[in-house]
Amino acid sequence: MSEHRTGAPGRVKEVTSLANPLVKDIKALALKKFRDQQNAFMAEGLKLVIDALDLGWTIKTLIFAKSALGNQAVEKVAARTVALGGDVLEVSEKVLTAITRRDNPQAVVGVFTQRFVPLKDIRPHSNDVWVALDRVRDPGNLGTVIRTVDAVGAKGVILVGETTDPFSLETVRATMGSIFAVPVAKTTPEGFLAWRKDFPGTVAGTHLKGAVDYRSVDFGNRPVLLMMGNEQQGLPDNLANGCDKLLRIPQAGRADSLNLAVATGVMLFEIRRNALKL
Amino acid sequence: MSEHRTGAPGRVKEVTSLANPLVKDIKALALKKFRDQQNAFMAEGLKLVIDALDLGWTIKTLIFAKSALGNQAVEKVAARTVALGGDVLEVSEKVLTAITRRDNPQAVVGVFTQRFVPLKDIRPHSNDVWVALDRVRDPGNLGTVIRTVDAVGAKGVILVGETTDPFSLETVRATMGSIFAVPVAKTTPEGFLAWRKDFPGTVAGTHLKGAVDYRSVDFGNRPVLLMMGNEQQGLPDNLANGCDKLLRIPQAGRADSLNLAVATGVMLFEIRRNALKL
Ligand SMILES: [Co+2]
Ligand SMILES: [Co+2]
Repeated sequence: MSEHRTGAPGRVKEVTSLANPLVKDIKALALKKFRDQQNAFMAEGLKLVIDALDLGWTIKTLIFAKSALGNQAVEKVAARTVALGGDVLEVSEKVLTAITRRDNPQAVVGVFTQRFVPLKDIRPHSNDVWVALDRVRDPGNLGTVIRTVDAVGAKGVILVGETTDPFSLETVRATMGSIFAVPVAKTTPEGFLAWRKDFPGTVAGTHLKGAVDYRSVDFGNRPVLLMMGNEQQGLPDNLANGCDKLLRIPQAGRADSLNLAVATGVMLFEIRRNALKL
Repeated sequence: MSEHRTGAPGRVKEVTSLANPLVKDIKALALKKFRDQQNAFMAEGLKLVIDALDLGWTIKTLIFAKSALGNQAVEKVAARTVALGGDVLEVSEKVLTAITRRDNPQAVVGVFTQRFVPLKDIRPHSNDVWVALDRVRDPGNLGTVIRTVDAVGAKGVILVGETTDPFSLETVRATMGSIFAVPVAKTTPEGFLAWRKDFPGTVAGTHLKGAVDYRSVDFGNRPVLLMMGNEQQGLPDNLANGCDKLLRIPQAGRADSLNLAVATGVMLFEIRRNALKL
């Protein structure tokens, strides 16, 4: 979908057939293979699309429901998309349902170019907080962590090892728009450990065997990297050994662990405790 | 499935057909209508089933994969189920996949009788913490809250208004077994407000307009009821007015709210801050 767009003005098309090749390309974004091939992903909702454009993300295609015709905000976004060289598709409810794989879909969907931050470009300073996630598996957990990182004013997320895709529809949904505000990097465990050597602050892992109460640490006014292990297995030894401290969240009851997104949220609100005020 | 079991010893059956009526009954548990008709729900995993039996839950049917034949722990649970008057089904992988609607299903699944705590039986004392959820919609959120309630040693969850079903497969999965350890009550907003009049401690709502920093409250050594609003709309006026305090979690960045389960987790760890030690 890109070769005939570079430098050329965007187009507006009316599409009602699921067999339309543009629609097929967009439907295919449900699968990681095709997201990677197209280097693209989908985000639902007018507000999200406007936020994404405001934050400088590249829109490839704007899709909207016929029912949104005449809505001024939608028409403004359509004009903006065309001006930026993107395609605009006016589609039937049936097409929107097929693309988003949900009943009662939002009236506006944007297809954007994926964006990862190169790890080497991440240079934490002052009291920046970053989160590293080891092999995170669940799209809802990843999306929720990205949303929480945004909410606490942390700087971004580093995905370590084989993880779920931050640009899947389910992850993007769970971020509630924060996918556009929170930088995401990805790397191997080796790449992470090499980069971590120059980290100018505290690398704090959360670990069931951690000896340090997560509320007892003074991180000073220096950067913090919070490292969270995989949902099933926690941190492997090589990553745990790469931490300056292994922290633990005390628990009662019979549950032997918290949900990953909840544990990350509890840790982040503690690390940012002095930075966040009403 | 119950009339021929009361008082009679359980049976062991080998089943490979999806058309088998026992299998059809269990498959139907994916839908709330049939869960309610059968007053039953499904939980996956050997460890969960053992925990449930240890905690006194009533097992209707134990289902296990042929591949688990000869596994001592599984055979022990099967014998226990029979002794309790439940049915035992030895099934093919195909049947397990159909029942659980997932590839690579767990080898053991239990069907249990649903159990709600009557609201009138909840009589908080000392420093008990309860969570009330207003119209919670997302099964993952509800399951994760139940799991977190267990992890922090809070006492239980009260569902207010039309909520997602705590006994859906997705909710039960997200609880990671805590569904068996955490009492759940359900009521209407009116029923809740009537019950709440006698609450012998602080009813604290989390509200975007809350004027009180969630970290600034001393709940003393009295019960706390944490009240969390619906994912989209937050607390409605009648429930907000029923709170002694409206608390807010300070946030940075552009996200205008936290995920419900994360917000509940952050609140619960704050309320239980002095009670939880490493
Ligand atoms: Co194109
Ligand atoms: Co029966």
